[in-house]
Amino acid sequence: MAETGKRATARAHSNIAFVKYWGNRDRRLRLPANSSISMNLSSLHTTTTVEWRDQFTQDNLTINGSAAAEGARRRVQNHLDALRARFEIDAFARVDSQNNFPMGTGIASSASAFAALTLAAVSALGVQIPEHEMSRLARLGSGSAARSIPAGFVEWHAGDSHEASFAESFAAARHWDLVDVIAIVSREHKRVGSSAGHETAASSIFQSARTATAPERIRSAKSAILRRDFERFASVVEQDSNLMHAVMMTSAPPLFYWAPLSLRIMQAVRRWRQEEGLEVCYTLDAGPNVHCICRAGAADAVANRLRGLSQGLAIASSPVGPGAYILPAV
Amino acid sequence: MAETGKRATARAHSNIAFVKYWGNRDRRLRLPANSSISMNLSSLHTTTTVEWRDQFTQDNLTINGSAAAEGARRRVQNHLDALRARFEIDAFARVDSQNNFPMGTGIASSASAFAALTLAAVSALGVQIPEHEMSRLARLGSGSAARSIPAGFVEWHAGDSHEASFAESFAAARHWDLVDVIAIVSREHKRVGSSAGHETAASSIFQSARTATAPERIRSAKSAILRRDFERFASVVEQDSNLMHAVMMTSAPPLFYWAPLSLRIMQAVRRWRQEEGLEVCYTLDAGPNVHCICRAGAADAVANRLRGLSQGLAIASSPVGPGAYILPAV
Repeated sequence: MAETGKRATARAHSNIAFVKYWGNRDRRLRLPANSSISMNLSSLHTTTTVEWRDQFTQDNLTINGSAAAEGARRRVQNHLDALRARFEIDAFARVDSQNNFPMGTGIASSASAFAALTLAAVSALGVQIPEHEMSRLARLGSGSAARSIPAGFVEWHAGDSHEASFAESFAAARHWDLVDVIAIVSREHKRVGSSAGHETAASSIFQSARTATAPERIRSAKSAILRRDFERFASVVEQDSNLMHAVMMTSAPPLFYWAPLSLRIMQAVRRWRQEEGLEVCYTLDAGPNVHCICRAGAADAVANRLRGLSQGLAIASSPVGPGAYILPAV
Repeated sequence: MAETGKRATARAHSNIAFVKYWGNRDRRLRLPANSSISMNLSSLHTTTTVEWRDQFTQDNLTINGSAAAEGARRRVQNHLDALRARFEIDAFARVDSQNNFPMGTGIASSASAFAALTLAAVSALGVQIPEHEMSRLARLGSGSAARSIPAGFVEWHAGDSHEASFAESFAAARHWDLVDVIAIVSREHKRVGSSAGHETAASSIFQSARTATAPERIRSAKSAILRRDFERFASVVEQDSNLMHAVMMTSAPPLFYWAPLSLRIMQAVRRWRQEEGLEVCYTLDAGPNVHCICRAGAADAVANRLRGLSQGLAIASSPVGPGAYILPAV
């Protein structure tokens, strides 16, 4: 039985997938339909403090200083239940979570949130577990959170069991100076969140071909990253994003995450690369924001061009980030 | 040997597919990868006069009063070659073709053009052939032209041979008062025309699932049309359009025919139907124009709403049309 009565603060970074996670083979365990590849985003993070105390009579959750909404509270409670079961404790927890970026816009807030929560909660118990195990536990809260535990460039092995499904780093953050220049097309909350969306994936007649060919794209994307081959990287990243959105648009009911401006940006990015030689490619998660991936030296040019497409467009920008880590006690 | 030295004028109508044709199983014979369903468009037509004359030393083609461009001329010559072979003649032809709508905007001008050309050319020879045979011959010029030969609501049986691949009517034009309200998003020429596009279809990992499930959608669309069940019709029509565009977007190279405004209109149409009960659905061919299909009584409301989305938007509108027919000599 683990020790309680302690607290810990952890930070985890958002991540952007280059080969996407969409659909689960096991919903309860969040075992994904296919392996995925991502990089952590240094500038976008969640900082979470967890305190376990035997005297607490219930779990308590604040997000960005306010009591959390019912849906978020229940999801965090479920995750704490999983951790209580794993570490054989009964105590409730006080959880305080701060995002430095807007939630529900397609920037994966649940990834950094559940990675930070898991690391803080486990650390507060005073137990040491391997990174693979931390990634597995984070996965139970939000699939893509598994990828926010290891550092830099990360592969999440789909696996066919809880034990086999975890993420690990395959290249350090410093390996390649990629930047994610994010066009914030909308700050509105998604009509259909990722968790609900994953459930519809299998209703598309295209999902099985997407998942069956994911291993090839994983190999190709990893190889492009390891060789720093931008042209090959761009081709597989855009293809994989298109494949996922094609599945979404052909699900029942169809999910259209692209906004008209998203499409305009995608087409411009492709043109900039293919006709003007600017090394940049796009990828979109389950939301309208367009993640424009480029080398550090091109980030300003990409941001300026994006602003030229749409006046007043908000832009967030992030280099490759570290894995989740513990912050000193405050 | 057929008689030459005669002329004939034929008119054929454009058609809009509800279950789409995309990709060929035999490129030369234009045997399609899957069967398709369409309705003819009464307001959009091509009128073509063909004159065969032994004295002509070459084929001659004018489109809308001007000498045709090289690409169009060669395609028409190839089609005339096929007709010469079929009817065992050597004569060249003078062809004059008039469209009453802009070409290359995703309104299928090649469908009406090759249907009218085929009917006029055969009629000018003074021979009588069954409608199935006329449809087969039109198919050799442009796949979807096969569908502009029969009247009203039409099914093109994919077939696995020249003999087996033809279109026939399954409901008369008067059966259901559908109208195609077309948002003319762009008058620009397509960067990648349909013929070149068909060649790329097999490069999408999704094409085989699309074609394998087409027979279900054919059954469902035919049944919805025969029962005049708009809700079911809308669902299969939008799904099939999404499936085709998903294949296009995931081909190598990816083909994006949607403009940002196309996407905006698609999303609005869906909202009008699902949230406001307006009976309208969308479908897009290999171009950015959005075909909004509704009952005749809703056509004005649909056109007004479309104009409300985008000031100055050009709109073409058409009820269900007849098959190809011969015009009196002028």
